[in-house]
Amino acid sequence: MRQITESGDVPDEHPATGESRPDNARDRLIAAAVESFAVRGFHGTTTRDIASAAGMSPAALYVHYKSKEELLYLISRSGHDVTLRLVQEGAASSDDPVEQLLAVVRRFTMYHARSHTSARIVNYELAALSPEHLEEIRVTRRSIEQKIRQIVEAGVARGVFHTSNPQMTALALLSLGVDVARWYRDEGEWSDKDIADHYCELAMRIVGVRGQRRQDS
Amino acid sequence: MRQITESGDVPDEHPATGESRPDNARDRLIAAAVESFAVRGFHGTTTRDIASAAGMSPAALYVHYKSKEELLYLISRSGHDVTLRLVQEGAASSDDPVEQLLAVVRRFTMYHARSHTSARIVNYELAALSPEHLEEIRVTRRSIEQKIRQIVEAGVARGVFHTSNPQMTALALLSLGVDVARWYRDEGEWSDKDIADHYCELAMRIVGVRGQRRQDS
Repeated sequence: MRQITESGDVPDEHPATGESRPDNARDRLIAAAVESFAVRGFHGTTTRDIASAAGMSPAALYVHYKSKEELLYLISRSGHDVTLRLVQEGAASSDDPVEQLLAVVRRFTMYHARSHTSARIVNYELAALSPEHLEEIRVTRRSIEQKIRQIVEAGVARGVFHTSNPQMTALALLSLGVDVARWYRDEGEWSDKDIADHYCELAMRIVGVRGQRRQDS
Repeated sequence: MRQITESGDVPDEHPATGESRPDNARDRLIAAAVESFAVRGFHGTTTRDIASAAGMSPAALYVHYKSKEELLYLISRSGHDVTLRLVQEGAASSDDPVEQLLAVVRRFTMYHARSHTSARIVNYELAALSPEHLEEIRVTRRSIEQKIRQIVEAGVARGVFHTSNPQMTALALLSLGVDVARWYRDEGEWSDKDIADHYCELAMRIVGVRGQRRQDS
């Protein structure tokens, strides 16, 4: 997986699990699972569908993965790890809550646009995870929410953000970014960067930054 | 289905298709389809699952509906019709774009919280509709988007809203409301009304209403 750079570049759609060779069997199966779950949902997809999309036999799939659920878990694990890293990097990019929030929103928005197919699976198929996997993923989701809430609270504490409910405001910021994965189309009129630019402007408004900031037209 | 009132009350979760007796077979099958699609997705659900959840035989289902897709279409049709009506009623409630937007956001948010189960199916299973049904539903979706965009544009034209991109701003307002259906929980700490109140405040900020409006704390 490509490194996420300081400028906010995020990886292209790639359901990586840390494998270094994109053509190996494990990666092919993950890519096939993303494609199959995206079209037919987790419950509508069989291991045979996934194996077949990867050009393998169902038996060959079980050499690499224990179950369809393990594939979903690894896709979800990877998506949540990338998202948490984006948010942590954005938060670490500055001491100023305004700059932190802009960095987080830019990265978060671009990721959900570029990786819209896997991001939909990651966010819509949580209920199909095993209870143990779901609990593990929930810990990461809480870390993501908490980091964004901390930025909002820090901005309120410094008197640069103004909101009556930092927690719901943080959730709305997250929600806006996550839902980009639902409506974004690669062939649409707006690029991921266009959306990130506008969403940075909206984020400043949502947290109640007053006056004309850089991003607040 | 209960009437949506001027105060912005919206119907409780009820996958109505216009049937007057909620206990009849057609309604039971629609309710069973909503429940089944919510748990296993459209593709992961069989007509046998739906019939069984409604306490019927698979053959009995076909007395009432042609196919699983017809059930999805009717759920989608009903959800989109309610949503368009909410938006139209909000828009018709005033001549002032500020009041119109507040009315629309309040209704839209409350609907997506209260009807979160069916709203998720309505928004996430579009690709499972037949091409003819999808095109029909898309016409309604465009009407919903257009109505919200018109309110934003009217506010900009009157100098009360300030945004560099009314179209993307309207989409963000819609997106924020739709995504409530993903994260809202009936047992959560915020009621549908709490969320609608805060989202009205956020909507005023998103469209760039300046100064302290009623909802803009």
